[in-house]
Amino acid sequence: MTAHPGDTGLLAPGWAGSAAASATGDHAFLRALLDAEAALTRAQAATGIAPAEAATAVTAAAGAGAFDVRSLAERARTGGNPVIPLVADLTKAVGDTHGPYVHRGATSQDIMDTAMMLVAARTLDPVLADLGRTERALSRLAAEHRDTAMPGRTLTQHAVPTTFGLKAAGWRSLVLDARERMRAVRESLPAQLGGAAGTLAAFGAYGASDPAGLPEAYARELGLRAPDLPWHTLRTPIGDLAGCLAFAAGALGKLGVDVLTLSRTEIAEVAEGSGGGSSAMPHKSNPVRSTLIASAARRAPQLAATLYGSMAAEDERPAGAWHAEWEPLRDLLRLVGGAARDAAELAEGLRVRPEAMRAHLDLTHGLIVSERLSAELAPVLGRARAKELLTRLASSGQPLAQAPELADADLDPTHYTGSAGALTDRALERR
Amino acid sequence: MTAHPGDTGLLAPGWAGSAAASATGDHAFLRALLDAEAALTRAQAATGIAPAEAATAVTAAAGAGAFDVRSLAERARTGGNPVIPLVADLTKAVGDTHGPYVHRGATSQDIMDTAMMLVAARTLDPVLADLGRTERALSRLAAEHRDTAMPGRTLTQHAVPTTFGLKAAGWRSLVLDARERMRAVRESLPAQLGGAAGTLAAFGAYGASDPAGLPEAYARELGLRAPDLPWHTLRTPIGDLAGCLAFAAGALGKLGVDVLTLSRTEIAEVAEGSGGGSSAMPHKSNPVRSTLIASAARRAPQLAATLYGSMAAEDERPAGAWHAEWEPLRDLLRLVGGAARDAAELAEGLRVRPEAMRAHLDLTHGLIVSERLSAELAPVLGRARAKELLTRLASSGQPLAQAPELADADLDPTHYTGSAGALTDRALERR
Amino acid sequence: MTAHPGDTGLLAPGWAGSAAASATGDHAFLRALLDAEAALTRAQAATGIAPAEAATAVTAAAGAGAFDVRSLAERARTGGNPVIPLVADLTKAVGDTHGPYVHRGATSQDIMDTAMMLVAARTLDPVLADLGRTERALSRLAAEHRDTAMPGRTLTQHAVPTTFGLKAAGWRSLVLDARERMRAVRESLPAQLGGAAGTLAAFGAYGASDPAGLPEAYARELGLRAPDLPWHTLRTPIGDLAGCLAFAAGALGKLGVDVLTLSRTEIAEVAEGSGGGSSAMPHKSNPVRSTLIASAARRAPQLAATLYGSMAAEDERPAGAWHAEWEPLRDLLRLVGGAARDAAELAEGLRVRPEAMRAHLDLTHGLIVSERLSAELAPVLGRARAKELLTRLASSGQPLAQAPELADADLDPTHYTGSAGALTDRALERR
Amino acid sequence: MTAHPGDTGLLAPGWAGSAAASATGDHAFLRALLDAEAALTRAQAATGIAPAEAATAVTAAAGAGAFDVRSLAERARTGGNPVIPLVADLTKAVGDTHGPYVHRGATSQDIMDTAMMLVAARTLDPVLADLGRTERALSRLAAEHRDTAMPGRTLTQHAVPTTFGLKAAGWRSLVLDARERMRAVRESLPAQLGGAAGTLAAFGAYGASDPAGLPEAYARELGLRAPDLPWHTLRTPIGDLAGCLAFAAGALGKLGVDVLTLSRTEIAEVAEGSGGGSSAMPHKSNPVRSTLIASAARRAPQLAATLYGSMAAEDERPAGAWHAEWEPLRDLLRLVGGAARDAAELAEGLRVRPEAMRAHLDLTHGLIVSERLSAELAPVLGRARAKELLTRLASSGQPLAQAPELADADLDPTHYTGSAGALTDRALERR
Repeated sequence: MTAHPGDTGLLAPGWAGSAAASATGDHAFLRALLDAEAALTRAQAATGIAPAEAATAVTAAAGAGAFDVRSLAERARTGGNPVIPLVADLTKAVGDTHGPYVHRGATSQDIMDTAMMLVAARTLDPVLADLGRTERALSRLAAEHRDTAMPGRTLTQHAVPTTFGLKAAGWRSLVLDARERMRAVRESLPAQLGGAAGTLAAFGAYGASDPAGLPEAYARELGLRAPDLPWHTLRTPIGDLAGCLAFAAGALGKLGVDVLTLSRTEIAEVAEGSGGGSSAMPHKSNPVRSTLIASAARRAPQLAATLYGSMAAEDERPAGAWHAEWEPLRDLLRLVGGAARDAAELAEGLRVRPEAMRAHLDLTHGLIVSERLSAELAPVLGRARAKELLTRLASSGQPLAQAPELADADLDPTHYTGSAGALTDRALERR
Repeated sequence: MTAHPGDTGLLAPGWAGSAAASATGDHAFLRALLDAEAALTRAQAATGIAPAEAATAVTAAAGAGAFDVRSLAERARTGGNPVIPLVADLTKAVGDTHGPYVHRGATSQDIMDTAMMLVAARTLDPVLADLGRTERALSRLAAEHRDTAMPGRTLTQHAVPTTFGLKAAGWRSLVLDARERMRAVRESLPAQLGGAAGTLAAFGAYGASDPAGLPEAYARELGLRAPDLPWHTLRTPIGDLAGCLAFAAGALGKLGVDVLTLSRTEIAEVAEGSGGGSSAMPHKSNPVRSTLIASAARRAPQLAATLYGSMAAEDERPAGAWHAEWEPLRDLLRLVGGAARDAAELAEGLRVRPEAMRAHLDLTHGLIVSERLSAELAPVLGRARAKELLTRLASSGQPLAQAPELADADLDPTHYTGSAGALTDRALERR
Repeated sequence: MTAHPGDTGLLAPGWAGSAAASATGDHAFLRALLDAEAALTRAQAATGIAPAEAATAVTAAAGAGAFDVRSLAERARTGGNPVIPLVADLTKAVGDTHGPYVHRGATSQDIMDTAMMLVAARTLDPVLADLGRTERALSRLAAEHRDTAMPGRTLTQHAVPTTFGLKAAGWRSLVLDARERMRAVRESLPAQLGGAAGTLAAFGAYGASDPAGLPEAYARELGLRAPDLPWHTLRTPIGDLAGCLAFAAGALGKLGVDVLTLSRTEIAEVAEGSGGGSSAMPHKSNPVRSTLIASAARRAPQLAATLYGSMAAEDERPAGAWHAEWEPLRDLLRLVGGAARDAAELAEGLRVRPEAMRAHLDLTHGLIVSERLSAELAPVLGRARAKELLTRLASSGQPLAQAPELADADLDPTHYTGSAGALTDRALERR
Repeated sequence: MTAHPGDTGLLAPGWAGSAAASATGDHAFLRALLDAEAALTRAQAATGIAPAEAATAVTAAAGAGAFDVRSLAERARTGGNPVIPLVADLTKAVGDTHGPYVHRGATSQDIMDTAMMLVAARTLDPVLADLGRTERALSRLAAEHRDTAMPGRTLTQHAVPTTFGLKAAGWRSLVLDARERMRAVRESLPAQLGGAAGTLAAFGAYGASDPAGLPEAYARELGLRAPDLPWHTLRTPIGDLAGCLAFAAGALGKLGVDVLTLSRTEIAEVAEGSGGGSSAMPHKSNPVRSTLIASAARRAPQLAATLYGSMAAEDERPAGAWHAEWEPLRDLLRLVGGAARDAAELAEGLRVRPEAMRAHLDLTHGLIVSERLSAELAPVLGRARAKELLTRLASSGQPLAQAPELADADLDPTHYTGSAGALTDRALERR
């Protein structure tokens, strides 16, 4: 046990070791902060207010990476953010000649916000890929089980039959919705550059002829979108990230809770490809991935709430609302990143048991098609008498097939899946 | 005090009496439920599975409106939703001949969800109009005060100058962002129709040749979008509403908290058109509208969190997640509706005091332009000595204008607003 | 459909018609506001700064009740709270002679906060009674089923046997925990009296010799606790209410989600006394009460979060944080009130099916006691070989009873309930 | 930049480097997991079902600490928690002879929950100490400034005078409330021991004569409270921690937002002992500690909400609700720990500027005592005419001292602090 090795996800089996984990760690965040500082000097060189040599020197020093994350974290206390000590260290690393070009004209928030957007972009890319894997696997499941009948369940009770294909197609449609929303946000992530209070004034003082053009050059260096306005307290990008991440967690959460339900010992209509074991009970095979997805779906909304709450940011930099974004946004990225990884594995490995589904359709001895009987008897007996008959048969406990009144009725539940197939086909046309 | 008159907003000065209040009340919700039932029968008539007379009869009975909201509310307990007693009452009102066509083939959730979408649509329309009023008023303020210099404030302290025009342009850009997101959601609101477990099976049992086409006819009757799939447990529309409403609350919240700060007795750079009074203190003029907007911004994120949390909805109808949406979604619609009304009034009536802004620029005796001095002295004295000089002057408490080292410096804060004007112009080009 | 009858719970089957509903409605809140005003004048009479006749007159006018809630709600907008228009109406109702004694020396928040505490007290009393009913019913269930074996389930899978008695005893222990916490808060609810900024200064100006003693007299009139300090921005009572209500919702939520699981068609080990029906499916008997409890448990935490967030209330009255408390606190009281009613009915009516429990113990063909076999075989075979054997048997699908290696083992799951009985007994000793 | 050094708080200036940070890190959590495992074997030795040598061996191996946190974190994925790989590693470290006594009879949740309680206890101790420092410093401030008059502010506007002493006494009373609640929870933290499904069955299988007595021995080894029942899904301790931590964050948040307001450049009635600097603006002295406290107060409620939401935990171990507790509870402990550290430093170093307070009392030219004038003129002029006069004077902008009607009035705001002194004295008597 090395002394204080830092947190690496011991309490987070949902995201430890994922692409999102490495894209969001302190180390990755430091990388993004340094990338932002280097891009800033390069943008100033590109717009003629800093020498090209300074850009080269700062980029080199930022890339060399002799920075101590723990020390930065602790020195961040004094000023309330890690950029202040980082600028000191980077300036020193660049040396006397070009040091003065480090961070010139910028404010800490320019660098923090930009780094956050870089980290978000670098995390969303693998997350989007995992959503793609998930939807493809679900697409295969839906097609394969287009006509696999199973009980539709409402308020925990069997209602009428549905198909596993329609269920999988529904999961996929949510994943596609999540991916669409996330892609749009991914494309919109802006760089941040405004200077002390968002007027870009210092860049003018340092000689820029068109300071309002600098953010564009800076964004270009970073591969981010150029902002319309400095957004120090116009937190649209944060709100948009909150929304698309909470949405994705909810969308995957639906898959997770369904698999949990269908995996129950008594139901066992599906099983995770490889379940989690137990030291004491050799027979246990727990639905671990869906558990972890469900866990993420429980946490994400409240993290998003904190971010939405931070949109009400007073002045040109708020005292608290901004600082309250950093960890929750990272947590959201990680949670959703981990959930997307788990969802992909879950969908790709899911074992489906059509025979269990078929067997369960008979559990209510025909009552699962009572809606159909209702519809078919009503014109014959009248709606009231039809209902009365079915209610009596339902409460008798007797299998419907034995009721003489239903001698001619089609009680086969697999014949009563309605438009499930057509709906599945239609849903799978969507790309 | 009439006995139990129902709640009309006594605890809600933020939304009582607003368009959103009347569009979301129990009465309006009942209206929407009835509209959904009538549309369902009409859609069945249009697709040939119900007689035209039934559609006429159901529509007439639904429109006549002899329904008792309180009784419906109390009878809703048994089955857990108000559609079940409403169908009973409506069927009775329609009478024996056409009564059987009421709600035929549908499930309670079809009607509840559709009604919720109707209520959302009917609420968002006036909210969007109020956002329009707000952005236009802010546009005027930004143009008028394009060059009105004021202190930029970060972490509660004066930083460098900015302009009120840029501030107002920023508020407006958030309102435009909110409007864009809300409009997109408004246009996407779908009708709900799936039957007992989302397979549309009963409509087939009742004779529909193309049950999967029925939702489209139904949506057309309602002026809503036709859903791709029944979305009983695919809650994209709910997640999207949660997101755009929380976003709007945050966007307006920024305006609210800024006005609150700038209205403080010691700052008084702006004032609400007509402030709220106090019975005991005749001089008080409270920033009531911004207070109520700020209050809405504090509540909306957590309501949205509940809605995002409900996306993880198990089975074909979840036991709890669905029911947990109803009041929070209504509350969100109301809060944002009230906040939009208050924001429009606030923006239209805001009194701006350029002279107070100007006076405050001098509060730090020149230090508000220290960044500029830093930039200008650095090339002359070197960065370190320049910083040292300014730090010494800053801590001396002496006005900078009296420092001999700064004899030639331009200390006029109104000359150091950077690109505020250009940024304002650019922001106002956006429509 | 009467025009705009106000909201009476159409979207809230969880609390419509409950004691909490009537104790928290606008009408009840108005009653509490008037009670607070009347108590204030009486307290001033009791301490000698108002004539006894004024106290009588104000109390009479406040009791007569000719106040229009809807009008108050709408006029509340101007000043941001309903006390301002109410004071005007009450003063008018009292008449010229004693009118000046209405609200004298107080601030709106004194009356609003006090009314909120009265409403809380009046709601918590029936809620505590329902928690009492619930724990008594659970106590009976636990005693009756002390030795009813059933599968213990972890991560959705059968683990080892437990008993229904222990399960019910656990539910009860949570209800007792909730009741203890709620009772403590109920007893601590304070009156609010501080005047404009919490210094009680106006009461001195009106002649009180010991203004700091006035809150005690006022609290006595109201049956509330006398506050140590005016708590306009020291929101301990709100935080405490948030905590005990969120706790109670969670405690009942555990009962709710367990009943939902155990009610599933495939499990059916318990059933609600009378389930909710469905118009289309005559056989359905939905676990409506547990659904509504689960729904409340999903919403309460976020409402509590808003209240906790409001504790960070700036100045002597905050601009937004205070206003953000009103509706969420009422909503929490209602949700928990409704959930307690449903829990009492649920517990009192719960039907338990020991035979289903017994049957499910055999679903895994003996594996449910694999932990025991592990423990017993380990000393014989060694831990590793024991585990290996059991894992092999588990994956074979073969009933354990047929394995020759286990010929002597006690595979009866009802013999492996460990200390469930003793733990149940101990838990039931708690009162 | 070493490769992946783990997270050490780069995004968390609020808690990085605090006692809470080291008490809650992955390393500390691993320590607690090992302490729990060692205590379990010792408790089995103490109750005669394991040899004393096994207890010694396990304790030694657990103490030696050759465990790899990162590897544990990643291997935790398979089973969904880190106890499973840890038991494997610890068993190996203990060796063949006593290895079988590791974790014997327990379930992962026994160890995780117990470790969480140990971590909570170890964190709350320094947090309570910091709350103690805070209250003592506030006590001194309140006593020292018992009679320092300042403007009372409501809804951002000057209302009537108050004193800084009363303000500080109010802050202290919240801190005392928070400490009381936290202490009670600290004392109640229970060990967890139930075995696979909470029946303690395995301990009987391993030979315990009184398995229900084992948790007590175990708790004794750990310095935790013995639980009444296994609480795998009876989450009272989690709910209680959520409540006391959210409360503490809110209580400190009040201090934070007040200091932020009073520190504003235009107000400057207080200043943090040493403010945070800015690289670009040498004059800036930011209220960093109060900013970080305010930031914690914004996040804590939503974290608590997630924990309260997890109380609705189905079965004998829930699939998601339990996992969703781990990180949020740790985050809450850290946030509150950091905020308590900052509050102690803030309170101990706060600089108070009575002269600024005094000057601001005159900002409204006498109107700050208008309430007093109202009270004193009403008996002379009648309430209506008095109000009319004061409203007219207020809107004239003329200093009240110049109004002939007020020639005899005492307009000195320092004479109108009401019972502020007496209330402060009373509040300071509380210990």
